Amino acid sequence: MAESWVPVAPSSDFSLANIPFGIISTSADPTPHAAVAIGAEALDLKMLISQHGLEKTFPGIDGLEGVFSQPTLNAFARLGSGVHRSVRRRLQEILGTAPSSSSLLRDDEELRARALIAQKKVKMHLPMDIGDYTDFYAGYHHAHAVGVMFRGLQNALQPNYSHLPVGYHGRASSIVVSGTPIHRPVGQILLDPAAEPKQPTAGPSRRLDIELELGCFISRPNKMGESVDVNDANPGHIFGYVLLNDWSARDIQTWEYVPLGPFNGKNFATTISPWVVLADALKPFRAKAVDNPTPLQDYLKEQQTDNVFDIDLEVELTTADGGETVISRTSSKHLMWSFPQMIAHHTLGGCPLRTGDLLGSGTISGPGGEGESGSLLEMTHGGKREVLLSGMDARTFLKDGDTITLRGSAGPRGARVGFGECVGRVYTSLRR
Amino acid sequence: MAESWVPVAPSSDFSLANIPFGIISTSADPTPHAAVAIGAEALDLKMLISQHGLEKTFPGIDGLEGVFSQPTLNAFARLGSGVHRSVRRRLQEILGTAPSSSSLLRDDEELRARALIAQKKVKMHLPMDIGDYTDFYAGYHHAHAVGVMFRGLQNALQPNYSHLPVGYHGRASSIVVSGTPIHRPVGQILLDPAAEPKQPTAGPSRRLDIELELGCFISRPNKMGESVDVNDANPGHIFGYVLLNDWSARDIQTWEYVPLGPFNGKNFATTISPWVVLADALKPFRAKAVDNPTPLQDYLKEQQTDNVFDIDLEVELTTADGGETVISRTSSKHLMWSFPQMIAHHTLGGCPLRTGDLLGSGTISGPGGEGESGSLLEMTHGGKREVLLSGMDARTFLKDGDTITLRGSAGPRGARVGFGECVGRVYTSLRR
Ligand SMILES: [Ca+2]
Ligand SMILES: [Ca+2]
Ligand SMILES: [Mg+2]
Ligand SMILES: [Mg+2]
Ligand code: NI
Repeated sequence: MAESWVPVAPSSDFSLANIPFGIISTSADPTPHAAVAIGAEALDLKMLISQHGLEKTFPGIDGLEGVFSQPTLNAFARLGSGVHRSVRRRLQEILGTAPSSSSLLRDDEELRARALIAQKKVKMHLPMDIGDYTDFYAGYHHAHAVGVMFRGLQNALQPNYSHLPVGYHGRASSIVVSGTPIHRPVGQILLDPAAEPKQPTAGPSRRLDIELELGCFISRPNKMGESVDVNDANPGHIFGYVLLNDWSARDIQTWEYVPLGPFNGKNFATTISPWVVLADALKPFRAKAVDNPTPLQDYLKEQQTDNVFDIDLEVELTTADGGETVISRTSSKHLMWSFPQMIAHHTLGGCPLRTGDLLGSGTISGPGGEGESGSLLEMTHGGKREVLLSGMDARTFLKDGDTITLRGSAGPRGARVGFGECVGRVYTSLRR
Repeated sequence: MAESWVPVAPSSDFSLANIPFGIISTSADPTPHAAVAIGAEALDLKMLISQHGLEKTFPGIDGLEGVFSQPTLNAFARLGSGVHRSVRRRLQEILGTAPSSSSLLRDDEELRARALIAQKKVKMHLPMDIGDYTDFYAGYHHAHAVGVMFRGLQNALQPNYSHLPVGYHGRASSIVVSGTPIHRPVGQILLDPAAEPKQPTAGPSRRLDIELELGCFISRPNKMGESVDVNDANPGHIFGYVLLNDWSARDIQTWEYVPLGPFNGKNFATTISPWVVLADALKPFRAKAVDNPTPLQDYLKEQQTDNVFDIDLEVELTTADGGETVISRTSSKHLMWSFPQMIAHHTLGGCPLRTGDLLGSGTISGPGGEGESGSLLEMTHGGKREVLLSGMDARTFLKDGDTITLRGSAGPRGARVGFGECVGRVYTSLRR
């Protein structure tokens, strides 16, 4: 991969090999619109096109009229993977130093000053209009560890777990972009779960947790009643990926979730990273999923065997007084189901996925225990052991003032493909 | 209540006491826009305003500019209950024969010909842009009957059932308006649930069922992190009501739903009736909910004791050869939780409800067994007994070609407030 003439720090997630898309607003243009990230800069695509014209900026690519001026990436996503590929390649030409590259931006000082803006100076918005959000449970080691905690080693996983990607419908209205404050939820909890009869109380969650997940955005929709073939899902229906923190209130969830699943324990907030990394950019980091010895139904049989990604992931906890601790390091390869399998299963009965719909992978934990866990529930063995933080601070679950930062990237220094940060700080419950 | 000068059959759901809102398109104006129903006619509000001007049609009511030209009722719903009340009253003046009524439409033959269109001749659309759909489980007799079937009499209801309105996130993308074809879903099912190890197969659902529910649309949103007081929910946050058929594939649901809840067993389709009956119109039919002896948390204590509605409901099954049988008659009063309680619980942890969000009541069944059940699962005791149809046909679950019609209305003949029909016909699974 060639280099960019825009300075890219060796540790940057946004090398020329990446070119992720996001929605920004700037002091010059406060209406949300599209940009890509390169190094520490955002390239304002609306500005670029307004100065240079669509045909000169993206010659020969159809359908782009107006799409980068919109407040979400949905119109762009809907154009399909062929267009995403062409646009990303053209941006690599515009931003690259290869002999074949374009001087359109590099040699135009005035345009550079207007279209290349420090990421620090732009405001990031939710990249997509998310019609529906579905959260899966494909992180095998997480599902197994949590299952052992609740049901013992023999019955850790339900019989359906290895036959289908288990998932549930999440709440679209509370998905927020990185940096949005998270208020600790109030909910019904059982202070004494062993007492009979069960007597709940209503109060702030005492077991506020995180879930480290990969999120996947849908590009092309499927019609109601029609299903997506597992081998057509990627790149046919996948736009790109983000990091996702599925904030979870374990005490609320435990009391409410039988028989219809998690509800208020989850629906208060879900944070995603702002830049959508396109499917093409992650292709070099394909890896084998967690082995599943169960013979699969035909509709889940994927030709692509390297069907997940080996992306290094980490979770950092920053306390109110600024102490930073990386509490987990793992990889997104620890999934037992791929996103194409999730899409094939989700649409098997004809459920329509729309452009902009979000799928969560489920919590990603490594096989090695605490230091590789995607949730505090696992790290603390259900709240029984503390996680040590720098300065001899410690946590079972989150305190008000804690900040959680998820990071994820793949590839060598200087040519990294990553997500940037997915950040959320916990604030005290709001009184009505 | 005065009468309308528009002919209203005594059995019509759409008397002057109702005035429900919907989204229509017509041969004269194929762009979806707003209307109300009166008798067998639709009054085209966009046409009325375009001919008469907003100020003359709705004098003194602010905020209506453009709202009835939109393809959904969201903008109108967002204006809040004060505006909904004023607009409905004004329409009762325009359509009524009381001395105080307006002759604006009645005495204008040309306008009548253009704005009053037979319902048979208009196409109905989804009335709202539905951001999120939540399905509750507040039908006590249904929850109890199904619980007995799965877990026996002693453990029929989970300990949480009487402490909080149990609900789960549904699928917004597959909500369709009455009349939309329903394709039988394909899914993973266990043909022999007793065999070990469990071996699923993929095929069309053999246990396709219905759920008779009341749906409730949100008007004013709440901010993320803030909750809605149970005593402010109605009419503060409720726009109106529809009938809802939560189509359910029992065999798919049974295999998939532990531990995260129903997914493909539900997300293939949900049908709603097209006309939204405003909160005000149903006020005279308030009734007491099913008694709940459990002391409630403060946030669920409602001052209004008649907090549900006594609306007569029925389910009709029409076979492919045209045989019609009403298979159930019940009332919407058989709920143990009210919509204000559902809203207070849903927002307790700060989950934002947006204008247009839909809440389902959960299946409504009466206490009297089969003839009052809101699902075939209950009527047939889990598929063990057949429901007899006219002409000595019989069903356990639905066959391809069957049509389900839900109806609901309250009040005396000539002054009825009802929903019209919520219809869906079952078609064979679509091959990909
Ligand atoms: Ca999750
Ligand atoms: Ca239901
Ligand atoms: Mg969440
Ligand atoms: Mg449904
Ligand atoms: Ni939604």
